[in-house]
Amino acid sequence: MQPKRLTILGVGLLGGSIGLALKASGSSCHVIGYGHRQSTIDTALKMGAIDEAVTSPEAAVKDSDWVILATPVGLFEKLLLQIAPALPVNAIVTDVGSTKRSIVRQAEITLPKTVHFIGSHPMAGSEKRGVEFAKSDLFTGARCILTPTSKSNPSALAAVEQFWQSLGSKTVQMSPEDHDRNICDISHLPHAIAAALVAMQSEESLPLAGQGFLDTTRVAGGDGGLWRDILIDNRDNVADSVKRFRAKLDALLNMLGSNHDAAQREALARWLDAAAERRKQLFAAKIKELHAE
Amino acid sequence: MQPKRLTILGVGLLGGSIGLALKASGSSCHVIGYGHRQSTIDTALKMGAIDEAVTSPEAAVKDSDWVILATPVGLFEKLLLQIAPALPVNAIVTDVGSTKRSIVRQAEITLPKTVHFIGSHPMAGSEKRGVEFAKSDLFTGARCILTPTSKSNPSALAAVEQFWQSLGSKTVQMSPEDHDRNICDISHLPHAIAAALVAMQSEESLPLAGQGFLDTTRVAGGDGGLWRDILIDNRDNVADSVKRFRAKLDALLNMLGSNHDAAQREALARWLDAAAERRKQLFAAKIKELHAE
Repeated sequence: MQPKRLTILGVGLLGGSIGLALKASGSSCHVIGYGHRQSTIDTALKMGAIDEAVTSPEAAVKDSDWVILATPVGLFEKLLLQIAPALPVNAIVTDVGSTKRSIVRQAEITLPKTVHFIGSHPMAGSEKRGVEFAKSDLFTGARCILTPTSKSNPSALAAVEQFWQSLGSKTVQMSPEDHDRNICDISHLPHAIAAALVAMQSEESLPLAGQGFLDTTRVAGGDGGLWRDILIDNRDNVADSVKRFRAKLDALLNMLGSNHDAAQREALARWLDAAAERRKQLFAAKIKELHAE
Repeated sequence: MQPKRLTILGVGLLGGSIGLALKASGSSCHVIGYGHRQSTIDTALKMGAIDEAVTSPEAAVKDSDWVILATPVGLFEKLLLQIAPALPVNAIVTDVGSTKRSIVRQAEITLPKTVHFIGSHPMAGSEKRGVEFAKSDLFTGARCILTPTSKSNPSALAAVEQFWQSLGSKTVQMSPEDHDRNICDISHLPHAIAAALVAMQSEESLPLAGQGFLDTTRVAGGDGGLWRDILIDNRDNVADSVKRFRAKLDALLNMLGSNHDAAQREALARWLDAAAERRKQLFAAKIKELHAE
């Protein structure tokens, strides 16, 4: 069930990297690319990320056994409507979006019963954007979250899982709802916070920034349009994550605001140390994971 | 007016690096170290960060023309009281603390008129702690903020400025008040935010962390006791910075919460792009600064 003709809709950093990774994996799959900017398509062809460029989504998918949506998430709904009538029977459709509830719901409503949709979220990429940053090892060692539902076809799920593994990813499964809540905490909230942290700086404070500030705000360097789509699509979770984040910041402020006897000073240091320790364990786990490749 | 006998009170990452940087600069200054942990002192001697170890602050400063306070800021007040009676006439006293109003005020109250205090904040270091991470180039290219007041002796200020420059730093001057407000925005607030961001994660979200989350929270890996002292000492500014940060986060949430016509979607993307652009300019300025060395 691995792809023989695969269409990538949106040939940017992720879409282009899928093409390159697929070629690098030894697959003889024919890769068709669709993108709305000619310069992107030309670069993707030149890099060997795609074998063929097709100028409409419908034409791009009509003979493909696999289709991957790799545009910004804000364009998914329109794309699904465009490709739905053109998809061959038994085609496998997946995506690389950073939110999963909406695309899974839209796919179940829009696509014909004769095709199989499985949501994917490869946790790779960077604040860089564009096919020129695509690389064949982008997914190596990266987690890829699959979000099947009770309606998902088990063979299609197994095929999509195997596909991402063949590109070097480690797959995990969770519901679209769990995905959107957990990813909000660990990725969408940090983005919102980093952007707000940059926005609140004054012209006096900004020149004093050191490496710490640059690291803390790195994720805020991402494309505004892409992140707008993600944050709007997941806005109920963003609001909830902000609420829980604020509660922790309030707890910290309360500890700062009270009278400082030895026990209170000790409690504050412990709170900060607990955060440091938790991060240290996470970091150690990541290092271990990388070396287990 | 450069040091002939310099005492470093607290031989950790910063104190140890001062000793190593001074030696590397070709100075023949005799460096005396005081620290409360024998193992730290032994390491500092072995590394050549100090020439001599003295077991009390009073004895450590009594024959020195220069003294640098390099313990956590929470210990400064006690140290000043201890060394005040022992300091030689015309001694220059400075520090490396991350907050400046309290140490400057305490020094002006506590130290005799016969010695000269100038507050310093070398913006170097990392989330690592301990003399074993000290290095002779820690201050190379780093900013060092000096915080003179109307009471500061101009020759002492010039000497302290020259001292930090001889270790490779670029000095800037501002009032203790401006320092504490600006550094709060660019350093203390990011630390509080990073700690709260780690603290609010669930056991489900944490394993999904990628490089972005690790970067965003790197500063939260710092020592709890050190940061407790800094945040408590600067708590009025921390509260104010949190307030202004929240206003920005609220603005973002409001944009997410409203109905999404094309103009509103466009405004949100612009807001996020503005943060990305501001960070990009900052990053470019930092790179330029480094290459101008």
